[in-house]
Amino acid sequence: MSASYHYTFNIGFKETSVSIEQDVPSIETVKTAAVLRGTGSSAKPAALVVCDTNTASLAKAVIGKTDTPLCVLETGEKAKTLGSVTTIILAARNAGLGRDGLIVAVGGGVLTDTAGFAASCYMRGCALAFVSTTLLGMADAAIGGKTGVDFDGVKNLAGAFYPAQAVFMPLVALRTVPSREIKSGFAEVLKTAILGGYEHEDLFDGALPGVGDIDGVDGYEAFAPLLARTVEYKGRLVEEDPEERSGKRALLNLGHTFGHALESAAGLGALTHGEAVAWGIARACELGVRLGVTPEPRAQRIAALLERFGYETRNPHPAITDVVRYQEAMQADKKKRSGRLVFVVPTGESAVCVDADEKQAE
Amino acid sequence: MSASYHYTFNIGFKETSVSIEQDVPSIETVKTAAVLRGTGSSAKPAALVVCDTNTASLAKAVIGKTDTPLCVLETGEKAKTLGSVTTIILAARNAGLGRDGLIVAVGGGVLTDTAGFAASCYMRGCALAFVSTTLLGMADAAIGGKTGVDFDGVKNLAGAFYPAQAVFMPLVALRTVPSREIKSGFAEVLKTAILGGYEHEDLFDGALPGVGDIDGVDGYEAFAPLLARTVEYKGRLVEEDPEERSGKRALLNLGHTFGHALESAAGLGALTHGEAVAWGIARACELGVRLGVTPEPRAQRIAALLERFGYETRNPHPAITDVVRYQEAMQADKKKRSGRLVFVVPTGESAVCVDADEKQAE
Repeated sequence: MSASYHYTFNIGFKETSVSIEQDVPSIETVKTAAVLRGTGSSAKPAALVVCDTNTASLAKAVIGKTDTPLCVLETGEKAKTLGSVTTIILAARNAGLGRDGLIVAVGGGVLTDTAGFAASCYMRGCALAFVSTTLLGMADAAIGGKTGVDFDGVKNLAGAFYPAQAVFMPLVALRTVPSREIKSGFAEVLKTAILGGYEHEDLFDGALPGVGDIDGVDGYEAFAPLLARTVEYKGRLVEEDPEERSGKRALLNLGHTFGHALESAAGLGALTHGEAVAWGIARACELGVRLGVTPEPRAQRIAALLERFGYETRNPHPAITDVVRYQEAMQADKKKRSGRLVFVVPTGESAVCVDADEKQAE
Repeated sequence: MSASYHYTFNIGFKETSVSIEQDVPSIETVKTAAVLRGTGSSAKPAALVVCDTNTASLAKAVIGKTDTPLCVLETGEKAKTLGSVTTIILAARNAGLGRDGLIVAVGGGVLTDTAGFAASCYMRGCALAFVSTTLLGMADAAIGGKTGVDFDGVKNLAGAFYPAQAVFMPLVALRTVPSREIKSGFAEVLKTAILGGYEHEDLFDGALPGVGDIDGVDGYEAFAPLLARTVEYKGRLVEEDPEERSGKRALLNLGHTFGHALESAAGLGALTHGEAVAWGIARACELGVRLGVTPEPRAQRIAALLERFGYETRNPHPAITDVVRYQEAMQADKKKRSGRLVFVVPTGESAVCVDADEKQAE
């Protein structure tokens, strides 16, 4: 059996089509999908494929025998810079892309964030497609239009809301993702399930490949329905609040306030993003119970789920070597939100934003 | 008498308020206008004022006795770079601006284009207000959301469609604009009048200060109704086609294809933008008559208007020292539009885009 899933979301002005399929798409397929969702022109646009050193072979599979130019960036967060954006813009210009040209980013979240930002500003915005190649990218960065680069030590200080017209999620790409990275992405899958209130459904049973124990593409095929559910839920949330104004989209930060502080206190790179987020979800449950927002049985169910997939949930986290730094990181987050700490905590069926200072004063 | 004019345009997702008034606004007035049009929050946001070395004293007048931080860039096209965007982003960060912060650009088109692009990407888009200080800026760059910087010799290669929430046009600022620059901006005023079909109206009579012969703010007050008409027409056109997709907004390129080629052939800086555009309008009329699109009487009326305000309309332009370069520049423009040269030419009442190759083949 080989199932595939297709969605179309209306994000702001633009339509985003999402395809979860077995194989990487050809450049012709990508162009067709991006142009159909774009200006309505029927001509195939000039394209530039952007990848990093990890995804170059997948990018070459997309390009096939065509002469589509390829721009290869360094791998990892250190390449998420304005310098990489400059490299992509110059490559697009050398490839002769006009405003109707297409940038195709083949990679994980760091790569799609960077190339997406470049596309948002190339000639004030050219067409954009993603071939997402990691579970974290598929479950999070590929959908919703948040693009950006780090700047002077601040994550995503410069960026744009610029959704891709077409997003492809080839399951075959997950074969080469290290199991610890799969576990990182899987935390976002769990987070979305908690927001959607379906974390108790049998989607998580049987068919699911064990995190950290995946050795073939068949496992990923069985996993596809759960990824599809994740994409569907996130896409709908983003449709309702494309630029994170109404508070709806902010629910996606479940586990992230605690998680970012943990990442900072453990030292950059010591934990994966997902490991930190999973731990943060456990903290959000505790806070929610204390504030009377999260029902005890749900908090227990969520904790059991996190533990079942091997995430560390103990408080304090064994990796926190610097408690002061953890507290400082929490305070830094506070500054971003007009001096108040806002947390997302689970409710009975979903989650809600709470102003912890206010709630505790009640 | 001291008249003022106020408009509100809906450009894409956003509302832009425009105020033509005598004096520069205070930072409090700017904040109120920008916040009213923005997220709907009632709190006054943190702000950063950006200016260039020419507009620093106007910027200080806006700031008044408040402690609003000021970021001063170099003056002129050479500062329209990604480096300047970086400078503004770091200044915004040092000023503690969040996503609800406000960048206020005080200057001409180059400065508002650069600061506008910085605002579009700071934390994926913060609030933005312009205090436009040149006639060219008021008549053109300040309205419509085109922001950008030059890159590797290409104008506006990187940028965004990002309208300011509030635009102020203080007539007093025009006092210090050199008369040749006024004449440059005035060509955009004439261009808009031709698009709107009101170039024969008495707005252009009597009350208008002679271009190149303006010596006091009273002249500018009398000029305000014509500026208001320009703003109103351009604003409506941009409302209909915010991202230059339908061809409506492309009408604003009247005179620009010929004009850009002239600027290039005359050598950078030999002619002002407006001098080149006015000459380009004369060429567009000639082409329109030849193609049977522009009625002869209208072409004559437009030529008379251009000459009345002292613009060079003779063909070839005396400043063209390099005919080959002129032809190459026209061909370079052609490449941008899928291999065809598209011109805007006047009709009886407005103007229209024509594909010259196609028209001549008929």
